[in-house]
Amino acid sequence: MTIPRIGVTLGDPAGVGPEVVVKTLSRLASLPTAAYVLFADARLVAAAEKAFGVRLERRDGLPAGAPQAGLFLSHVPAAAGDGPDGRPTAWGGEASFRFFEAAAAEARHGRLEAVVTAPVSKAAWALAGKPFRGHTDYLERVYPGAIMSFWSDRIKVALFTHHRPLNEAVAAVRKEALAGFLRRLDAALSRLPGGPFELLVAGLNPHSGEDGNLGREEQDEIGPAVEAVRREGVHAQGPFPPDTVFLKALGMPRTVVAALYHDQGLIPFKLEAFARGVNATLGLPFVRTSPDHGTAFDIAGKGAADPRSMEEAVRLAAVFSATGS
Amino acid sequence: MTIPRIGVTLGDPAGVGPEVVVKTLSRLASLPTAAYVLFADARLVAAAEKAFGVRLERRDGLPAGAPQAGLFLSHVPAAAGDGPDGRPTAWGGEASFRFFEAAAAEARHGRLEAVVTAPVSKAAWALAGKPFRGHTDYLERVYPGAIMSFWSDRIKVALFTHHRPLNEAVAAVRKEALAGFLRRLDAALSRLPGGPFELLVAGLNPHSGEDGNLGREEQDEIGPAVEAVRREGVHAQGPFPPDTVFLKALGMPRTVVAALYHDQGLIPFKLEAFARGVNATLGLPFVRTSPDHGTAFDIAGKGAADPRSMEEAVRLAAVFSATGS
Repeated sequence: MTIPRIGVTLGDPAGVGPEVVVKTLSRLASLPTAAYVLFADARLVAAAEKAFGVRLERRDGLPAGAPQAGLFLSHVPAAAGDGPDGRPTAWGGEASFRFFEAAAAEARHGRLEAVVTAPVSKAAWALAGKPFRGHTDYLERVYPGAIMSFWSDRIKVALFTHHRPLNEAVAAVRKEALAGFLRRLDAALSRLPGGPFELLVAGLNPHSGEDGNLGREEQDEIGPAVEAVRREGVHAQGPFPPDTVFLKALGMPRTVVAALYHDQGLIPFKLEAFARGVNATLGLPFVRTSPDHGTAFDIAGKGAADPRSMEEAVRLAAVFSATGS
Repeated sequence: MTIPRIGVTLGDPAGVGPEVVVKTLSRLASLPTAAYVLFADARLVAAAEKAFGVRLERRDGLPAGAPQAGLFLSHVPAAAGDGPDGRPTAWGGEASFRFFEAAAAEARHGRLEAVVTAPVSKAAWALAGKPFRGHTDYLERVYPGAIMSFWSDRIKVALFTHHRPLNEAVAAVRKEALAGFLRRLDAALSRLPGGPFELLVAGLNPHSGEDGNLGREEQDEIGPAVEAVRREGVHAQGPFPPDTVFLKALGMPRTVVAALYHDQGLIPFKLEAFARGVNATLGLPFVRTSPDHGTAFDIAGKGAADPRSMEEAVRLAAVFSATGS
């Protein structure tokens, strides 16, 4: 088994990213064996080590030749100017964008198997003039087949649509698009270890439309999409009533719920997996995971941030990298 | 304190209703003190007692004069014909409708403070020619201000709309209608013991629309509705992002989430309270509760039905009746 190379970005310097990153990477011995590469400004890393009382055992530069286990620091300079102060700034947006872009470039060129991203601020990216709503938006533009998914021991969810107004999300439920999504999701999951995975497809309407009395999308769009991909060998079932499909999937290690809109998937995911959930972008040529929390500007710099979700994101990246997908 | 009079209906004889009802009412000593009145065909009650090995300490007829604690059986004859066989039939639909109507009539006339309904089959009601989708639909036609809500220790949810296609439910989110709903909900809750209750109003779109970038209902409809009722003294806040509002409410005994559509409320409720949840219709001149499961025809008659949700429905009816609301 080769050692996976896993990039980690520092996130917005004004948020909790530096804290959860240095807390997590200071305990290398408890993490899966990998060549971890932190993309960050060395000055900010040193400041975080000091602020949170931890020390990183690191080598400078990117790992060369056959990957060696351990932690590497790839110095990505932040712009000159003010440091963190717990709110979105152009400075923080520019810095966090540079860290991410440097890691993504390495991954795109096949020099990382996975990238774990600490939280960035969409507002800070906007202030810095970056035309992306966040990591997933950036990745979707580069890789149009990218899929937003959420992972925890108890429950796993993939989103057919995500950051769209609900009325548009409802209108987007069309059989061709849904069948395409299920095919891409199945293909992405088939490259992960721990499979084969089974997809449970949620309905859209109460009680899955109850034979058309409460909406027709299940009969006209979702059911035909599921049937079409099943004929091609995709392990998908449904549509199931939205209010019970998550109970069916709960605790099943190889079952992923295909949710049709943002809150259909994230209401149950956040209830079941809050602070332990991992966001994973599937359908890329590399693995990308991140904690399922944001920059949490309000508690940044206070030492109170919980690194568990970041740790889980690192672990999942290592698990997913194990097949070199 | 006067003893509340609580009607209990047997539900569809072919479902799990008779089983969960006789199991629950056979343990009167463990239930809150009340005059319980079972609306059922005496023959079916006797059959259920025999089938499930329990005995009801009951008196025949309705309680007269000052209510006395104990169990009364109000005999409501089922039609002649075949008995239960685990599927919806016109016979079962007719019988369960008669039990419910008899109890509702007593409550309407002020002779019961509460009615607890065991599950009926919408399909059986249709076969019997009853033009109602279920208990709530019936009650909403008689009492247009009726509100569907769900109660458990951990989480409480009221639904602005329920059995409508999702695209219609989205279109129904208008400030006047929502303000009216919040007023009615607040008024109904203010009549219950254990208050005052606080309402957390869910948004409609991802992240509550994110300042209009992901939908405008929060700014144009929901926010103004919440503001309007707050000015009238209603304890309502919101809109909150749908994927975190339930976490805010979790474990708070006097907090009710106002959900905008069926699955927004029932996905989290069923995850948190499955098998222990209670459905309560608010905004009636009497209390109505029911277990949050259905007829479960597939396990009917096997002795395997779990009476916990029915017990909780009885307890909640007693709690709600304590103020005579």
